[in-house]
Amino acid sequence: MIIVMKPSATKEDIDKVIAKVKQNGLDINLSKGAETTIVGVIGNKKKIANLQMNMMRGVEKTVRITEKYKLVSRNFHPEDTVVDVDGVKIGGKDIVVMAGPCSVESEKQLDTAAEAVAKAGAKFLRGGAFKPRTSPYDFQGLAEDGLKMMRKSADKFGLKVVTEIVDKDDIDLIGAYADLFQVGARNMQNFQMLKALGKQQKPVLLKRGLSATISEWLNAAEYIVSGGNSNVILCERGIRTYETFTRNTLDLSAVAAVKELSHLPIIVDPSHGTGRWQMVAPMSRAAIAAGCDGLIIEVHPHPESALSDGDQSLTPKKFGQIMEELRKIAEVMGRKI
Amino acid sequence: MIIVMKPSATKEDIDKVIAKVKQNGLDINLSKGAETTIVGVIGNKKKIANLQMNMMRGVEKTVRITEKYKLVSRNFHPEDTVVDVDGVKIGGKDIVVMAGPCSVESEKQLDTAAEAVAKAGAKFLRGGAFKPRTSPYDFQGLAEDGLKMMRKSADKFGLKVVTEIVDKDDIDLIGAYADLFQVGARNMQNFQMLKALGKQQKPVLLKRGLSATISEWLNAAEYIVSGGNSNVILCERGIRTYETFTRNTLDLSAVAAVKELSHLPIIVDPSHGTGRWQMVAPMSRAAIAAGCDGLIIEVHPHPESALSDGDQSLTPKKFGQIMEELRKIAEVMGRKI
Amino acid sequence: MIIVMKPSATKEDIDKVIAKVKQNGLDINLSKGAETTIVGVIGNKKKIANLQMNMMRGVEKTVRITEKYKLVSRNFHPEDTVVDVDGVKIGGKDIVVMAGPCSVESEKQLDTAAEAVAKAGAKFLRGGAFKPRTSPYDFQGLAEDGLKMMRKSADKFGLKVVTEIVDKDDIDLIGAYADLFQVGARNMQNFQMLKALGKQQKPVLLKRGLSATISEWLNAAEYIVSGGNSNVILCERGIRTYETFTRNTLDLSAVAAVKELSHLPIIVDPSHGTGRWQMVAPMSRAAIAAGCDGLIIEVHPHPESALSDGDQSLTPKKFGQIMEELRKIAEVMGRKI
Amino acid sequence: MIIVMKPSATKEDIDKVIAKVKQNGLDINLSKGAETTIVGVIGNKKKIANLQMNMMRGVEKTVRITEKYKLVSRNFHPEDTVVDVDGVKIGGKDIVVMAGPCSVESEKQLDTAAEAVAKAGAKFLRGGAFKPRTSPYDFQGLAEDGLKMMRKSADKFGLKVVTEIVDKDDIDLIGAYADLFQVGARNMQNFQMLKALGKQQKPVLLKRGLSATISEWLNAAEYIVSGGNSNVILCERGIRTYETFTRNTLDLSAVAAVKELSHLPIIVDPSHGTGRWQMVAPMSRAAIAAGCDGLIIEVHPHPESALSDGDQSLTPKKFGQIMEELRKIAEVMGRKI
Repeated sequence: MIIVMKPSATKEDIDKVIAKVKQNGLDINLSKGAETTIVGVIGNKKKIANLQMNMMRGVEKTVRITEKYKLVSRNFHPEDTVVDVDGVKIGGKDIVVMAGPCSVESEKQLDTAAEAVAKAGAKFLRGGAFKPRTSPYDFQGLAEDGLKMMRKSADKFGLKVVTEIVDKDDIDLIGAYADLFQVGARNMQNFQMLKALGKQQKPVLLKRGLSATISEWLNAAEYIVSGGNSNVILCERGIRTYETFTRNTLDLSAVAAVKELSHLPIIVDPSHGTGRWQMVAPMSRAAIAAGCDGLIIEVHPHPESALSDGDQSLTPKKFGQIMEELRKIAEVMGRKI
Repeated sequence: MIIVMKPSATKEDIDKVIAKVKQNGLDINLSKGAETTIVGVIGNKKKIANLQMNMMRGVEKTVRITEKYKLVSRNFHPEDTVVDVDGVKIGGKDIVVMAGPCSVESEKQLDTAAEAVAKAGAKFLRGGAFKPRTSPYDFQGLAEDGLKMMRKSADKFGLKVVTEIVDKDDIDLIGAYADLFQVGARNMQNFQMLKALGKQQKPVLLKRGLSATISEWLNAAEYIVSGGNSNVILCERGIRTYETFTRNTLDLSAVAAVKELSHLPIIVDPSHGTGRWQMVAPMSRAAIAAGCDGLIIEVHPHPESALSDGDQSLTPKKFGQIMEELRKIAEVMGRKI
Repeated sequence: MIIVMKPSATKEDIDKVIAKVKQNGLDINLSKGAETTIVGVIGNKKKIANLQMNMMRGVEKTVRITEKYKLVSRNFHPEDTVVDVDGVKIGGKDIVVMAGPCSVESEKQLDTAAEAVAKAGAKFLRGGAFKPRTSPYDFQGLAEDGLKMMRKSADKFGLKVVTEIVDKDDIDLIGAYADLFQVGARNMQNFQMLKALGKQQKPVLLKRGLSATISEWLNAAEYIVSGGNSNVILCERGIRTYETFTRNTLDLSAVAAVKELSHLPIIVDPSHGTGRWQMVAPMSRAAIAAGCDGLIIEVHPHPESALSDGDQSLTPKKFGQIMEELRKIAEVMGRKI
Repeated sequence: MIIVMKPSATKEDIDKVIAKVKQNGLDINLSKGAETTIVGVIGNKKKIANLQMNMMRGVEKTVRITEKYKLVSRNFHPEDTVVDVDGVKIGGKDIVVMAGPCSVESEKQLDTAAEAVAKAGAKFLRGGAFKPRTSPYDFQGLAEDGLKMMRKSADKFGLKVVTEIVDKDDIDLIGAYADLFQVGARNMQNFQMLKALGKQQKPVLLKRGLSATISEWLNAAEYIVSGGNSNVILCERGIRTYETFTRNTLDLSAVAAVKELSHLPIIVDPSHGTGRWQMVAPMSRAAIAAGCDGLIIEVHPHPESALSDGDQSLTPKKFGQIMEELRKIAEVMGRKI
């Protein structure tokens, strides 16, 4: 931590600041410039994290220098992490595609979607059985019935299952059917659920919060990893901005940022990230070109009659065409789908 | 819902759109302008909510016209709601102040704070026993020990207790000690917890999410009220913007907006809303002048050694001075503290 | 400036960083922590401003410590500045209200508005003769004809004139009619115009940019003051956020921030700041309670037929009522209208 | 325009709304739903644009249905526009790369940069002679001397010149040296300059404003095109969000949006868009994969001693490597560099 003193700070003010830092078992480094004196704080990270200096007389501001996350940081773990989801590796050479409907609606819907996406090269069936919806009057999902259908369809077509968890009490229930837990944007800082997911070993797909900084997102991942589960995959899904043409603003620079700051794999959700099916193809291509490790895409046999998010879902046919394009971009990137 | 057709849409495109709306049991109103044809959709709100039209040929965009929330809307309940928290009324003539430390740290800390804030006119003791922290390495709260201390200090000085709940499984535990559940910004869309809080009768203070629209916030309140608990108080606590001088941007126009759109009471948190103790006085005055029903303010006997959020906490002395200023503003507003 | 080295930085990396800083005529202060080495840069502010270090090997990031603005900073000019606009003092004890229509439309419109606002206690007539409009097809203003009408109406009712300038070539033209130049949000970083306004002495009302940080806003003011014109008044007018219920999010904490960081007076525009006439009263009261030095409010004799921004304009009658409320808040603040 | 009435609106309220619409020479379409009555307004676009209805009794809100821009809209001009800049075509099959330093500093700097970028395949030399800088104390550019150097270096290596204009009075001066005017983000709504650029025929590169919506950006382009100059190229350069790791958030979905909404070509600036040289390669690849028509990239012979924006500049060597990668992505997209 850096403590910046006001130009008007007196020697006494500075001495008191130094004294307080030392009382907290920390050391200081004093730097006097022409106008401003700066007190650098050295020592134990936790002690520094809890140091409160802004209300002392003469203090202009304090600046935190280091990030709080550690286990997920590339600084302390330079090699890429590859997460193995029941045999499918994410974060390695392969670009892994997860696809399926927003909500599970029926066996027939799922089978049609699963068959098509498997044929096109997807490795995971996605689908929501527990839906976090803005209004209590929106469709809330089929719960366990939906999980059963997903497992059945996925097995029939050789796919893994990824589905959202919205309640830590459902870990066992969902874990019995799914291969990968998805934590949605609204729950990125549901710390109780993150802690619970950290105490088991099934992999977790952690979506970025609606307006989470990359630092907060990596700290959320740290909750899971520090609990003991290092099988975490990040997912960029668009952030909230003032723009209204798209549902969210898909932040592909987050892919490059995460690759720099962390060793965890990262995938991209162009369907929620834009909210417009017309944009799924260009944003999927761009995501791979930016260096992501996978995609999660909404595909629905009949988007126009979907119970949720039909506006951003692709037909199986369109999805198949897009996969062809994506294969070529992946190849240029030295990877494969 | 309004369906806006493209200028290039053919008669066939429009006919198909109309046919689909009717197949969904809804009626239409056709409006042909010079360039654009608009199809208005009339009928059952739930059916409209689930209608997916954007992927049909010739459709430019769809516009949702009505809000999904109903029970919390002033349109359907014009009179102000007054929430009674064990005898203290929020939303009526009185402006209710809640004050205390960010985190409960010790009995002595709480007693000092409680005595001071009670003397200055606060009606509630606030304090966190379960803390949702960005990093797993930050102080996470004293849990039940903290709750016990709060209840004891509050009772000693005639205060009510408000404290945060971060896990729906803690409803009984926290309910045994607190008079008012606080749902924090990070949990505003923890729908499982909202549903659980809707099934019991203790009042709930619902903070606005870090980047929640007013509409989403009122929909979150609808989750609680539609579950059967109409004792909901809203709390504006700052939203996330690009500005970095303040921790958040306190949106006081949300007070006026909520008063227009809803009948629920609303209070303001100037401490988290700004993250700077220097701004608590001006923003508290402004909040009352804007028409809020109460304030929740951080007060710590020794802010400079607080375990969390010391930068935004007031000393008891400063808090007392501010309360004097606030009384005068309240009086001008025809209210009292 | 603080240069934060990566944990993996070698001694050689650090030595090269130090060597480069010194080559630029600057001094360093080295601070070695457990994980991180920090290089503090000391010396001439301008040299530091132009130092580029992020691309050197081993550098994690650089942090700028001090603001670039100086003349507008309270650090170097602790007393409040009071700007005298032809006898009306802004920034002193009085709270100055400016009111009138968004666009100048006709003599009759202006006279009706001017008479009403003068009677209610406003000191300035506001009105746009040159309008910066999002679309080229929107009404662009009456230009010099509008200026003439404003001057005439203002003189008739003893008011000063404030009006927007959108082109540096219009300084003489507008200056011949107006008492106060208004720089709108879209031109806050039109640096050529700011420089030109700095070379003359007529006071300038500088609105905050649509998404300007407080720091950028004060730097924009520095352009004018460093040119030689210290008669600058700031105006908060709402910032752009994701919220759509209001046109902008009025940031009243900016009032408190500016009072802390700068000695310049600051007024508030609740009409553009919210875009809803219903919110003008509560936000005006709140602005005064937050400590602003004045208000600029849209008043139109017939808002429902205004050529621009009618949705946020008050009728003269409503304006008169609000002024009564504002007087009481001002009194509590030890000020008067 | 759609006028949504409140559920509480009386027949009289609705009749008055209808009467006012008709008085304005417009027609209506009435749609009565279960709870809400909606009044659709039909007729002349300009008249509708100036209609003010929100302050009438019983009106809940108004919703604008159609965009105000027309000439730049794909609805009215379905084929792609190809802009010819002195023989180099932008918006056709070729992906055009513009590269060079942020600021022009010296002949040697420019020659080194120009030679390298020409060799690597760039078609334009970029560089700033007039710099819009946040602080008046930052380097403001070499003005005409800089323009001369650019022209000379560009000619030597067969490149076109693109450079920023910050003052409409400089059109002739800059036009004498440059092939393409660049309008920067801060001037996207400097409408006087846009109008002036619309009255001449040299092509204009219009950057998106720091927090401009896509709609506002296209309306800004409409200012130029409606003035008579249809040679407009758009440039996405990152928008302002709450994220602080990157300088801006590069919005690649804007590429897809512009391609859908408009026929104008669009290029991407990954250097300003991210502010980090490490991100230029992945974001350039992603931009091409998203479908852009070109790139503008900062390249400086010695980024670590650049007078501005060195942190986001590439060395010539690194630029050459990136161009190789970009060629392969372009090829997959059926295009070439």
